[in-house]
Amino acid sequence: MNESTLKTNLFTIAAALILCACATQPSSSIGSPLILAKQGSFFVGGRDVQSDSLSLLSAYSSSGTVTVDQVYVRYQVPVEAKRAPIVFIHGCCLTGKTWETTPDGRMGWDEYFLRRGYPVYVVDQAWRGRSASNIAAINQVKSGKAPIDQLPTVFAAGHEPAWAIFRFGPEYPKVFPGMKFPLEAQTEFWKQMVPDWLNSLPAPNPTVTALSTLAQQVGGAVLVSHSQSGIYPFLTAAIDTKGIAGIVSIEPGACPAATGDMTPYAKMPVLVLFGDYVDLSTRWAPRLKACREFVAAVSHAGGKAELVVLPDIGIHGNSHMLMQDTNSLEIADWLIAWMDRAISK
Amino acid sequence: MNESTLKTNLFTIAAALILCACATQPSSSIGSPLILAKQGSFFVGGRDVQSDSLSLLSAYSSSGTVTVDQVYVRYQVPVEAKRAPIVFIHGCCLTGKTWETTPDGRMGWDEYFLRRGYPVYVVDQAWRGRSASNIAAINQVKSGKAPIDQLPTVFAAGHEPAWAIFRFGPEYPKVFPGMKFPLEAQTEFWKQMVPDWLNSLPAPNPTVTALSTLAQQVGGAVLVSHSQSGIYPFLTAAIDTKGIAGIVSIEPGACPAATGDMTPYAKMPVLVLFGDYVDLSTRWAPRLKACREFVAAVSHAGGKAELVVLPDIGIHGNSHMLMQDTNSLEIADWLIAWMDRAISK
Repeated sequence: MNESTLKTNLFTIAAALILCACATQPSSSIGSPLILAKQGSFFVGGRDVQSDSLSLLSAYSSSGTVTVDQVYVRYQVPVEAKRAPIVFIHGCCLTGKTWETTPDGRMGWDEYFLRRGYPVYVVDQAWRGRSASNIAAINQVKSGKAPIDQLPTVFAAGHEPAWAIFRFGPEYPKVFPGMKFPLEAQTEFWKQMVPDWLNSLPAPNPTVTALSTLAQQVGGAVLVSHSQSGIYPFLTAAIDTKGIAGIVSIEPGACPAATGDMTPYAKMPVLVLFGDYVDLSTRWAPRLKACREFVAAVSHAGGKAELVVLPDIGIHGNSHMLMQDTNSLEIADWLIAWMDRAISK
Repeated sequence: MNESTLKTNLFTIAAALILCACATQPSSSIGSPLILAKQGSFFVGGRDVQSDSLSLLSAYSSSGTVTVDQVYVRYQVPVEAKRAPIVFIHGCCLTGKTWETTPDGRMGWDEYFLRRGYPVYVVDQAWRGRSASNIAAINQVKSGKAPIDQLPTVFAAGHEPAWAIFRFGPEYPKVFPGMKFPLEAQTEFWKQMVPDWLNSLPAPNPTVTALSTLAQQVGGAVLVSHSQSGIYPFLTAAIDTKGIAGIVSIEPGACPAATGDMTPYAKMPVLVLFGDYVDLSTRWAPRLKACREFVAAVSHAGGKAELVVLPDIGIHGNSHMLMQDTNSLEIADWLIAWMDRAISK
């Protein structure tokens, strides 16, 4: 082979290698194309309800059957899925949008985890977002068929009270020093918020039942919950541990009582994760304390449960909405490392 | 170059070409990986509303500001976007889910058009799905601050009455002969349906205002609407034709009155598309007739408007939900050919 031929060969081989790398691994880098094996959406759960109060409009019949309590699921699977599927479950007054593009337009955890090799499932809780609520009671009251107290319980969190709940600051509009939530984009964040029908749901919570179905359907899933839904993966595991590879509960509104049966939680890796400023919040400090007791109880029962408060590992400035904070991908990287250690593949 | 070197060179060049093809064009085939340049979600529109009736629960403040009337948008852009962006707008009692995976698990139009080179934007109408409704009036009535008649107007379409509206058959549970809707998967379809708050919306309809913003933001968009939203692209064009490259109105609940000002619609390609069995429906036959008159009026005003009833071009058996019928991709192909002819790229 002469020198010129050698150069040509090396050039074409290099070109092939570059293209090869481009074709098989570009998804892992944020700026590169995203390559999906498949994507789609479906529902889990749901029950049929008959009513004579579906409508008070002449154009739509008042009587009929509606399906409610189902949970909407959108999923994406990367071409080289190399890690356990993740189910992302949003919190109060929010929808699956929580995990998508951040208010200031950065990549959401839904896509970032996908690019790191996880099949990703994002749900809307029952009666929220694309998961239908049952409005028959409103029409029953409006038409005089039921008393006013039969109206559903529904609430919306206002920006001002939500400010302290999301720990942007001690009270609206004060900001905690070093705050990493992108408050300059708060108008986009407020648009994510929707009315919350949780207190109108039947018992047991159909979102939890649906999560159990979903976990078994997907198989070996990590349930990643947030805030209001923080306890849902634990309730799901209490129904059946089948299909659940691990639990990551981010800033849970509640952990299971430390005095209860720890058996289901001792069977899988558990992480409870909190952000910053928790001790400055009368709402959140007691929850952190109760979760510490829960995690200790799981460990005492032989389980592998951890509780991490981000400042304790040197990550500062995180709000309750840490998956949207400006260092959200740094936290994601830390979480991926934790899952790589804790969860068998 | 000797023969062996030549062979090596040809081999590496061929390998590079194969990888190149793999990296840039696999999305067009249904079974192959889907390659996205980018994806994400955001909101358009929205307004802040103050209320003292956001909550009747002690855990959440009754007073504060909520943002309502915004429209949720999820988008995906293929690596080789070669056609105009499409905005998909769903109909009554449904959400953006309409365009995703079909009830029987086939690829939805959202992904199919993406694979054919269109950037795709899927919205949830205002007060529907991930777009927040305003529930303050419910709490005002429940707390005695407002009379019962101030309750919002909301309805849910029951399976049985919806059956004839969606033209699965003349009446529940009769089926039109040759029906292409996947009725064996109807339980999954019923789960797509959500309560409809349209009649509680302020005027002008914030979905329409938001669509105008979105069209101008995206630029050169084809607005593809369905049923209840059938007229929205026309109302959007009446606000401003800027950003709108064309209108495809599928089975519109109404077309603009033929006696009105046709100027906005004469400026862009317009397609009104109906499925099968229309003349067998007392609900839909008059709407088809009125749309024919509208399209004639646009043409008379010098526009390029067409009305197509699928059986007239040899495609039979389509319901009102033709984007989910078993021949949905055949219709998509026909629509793509229409857009390629009608809409300048």
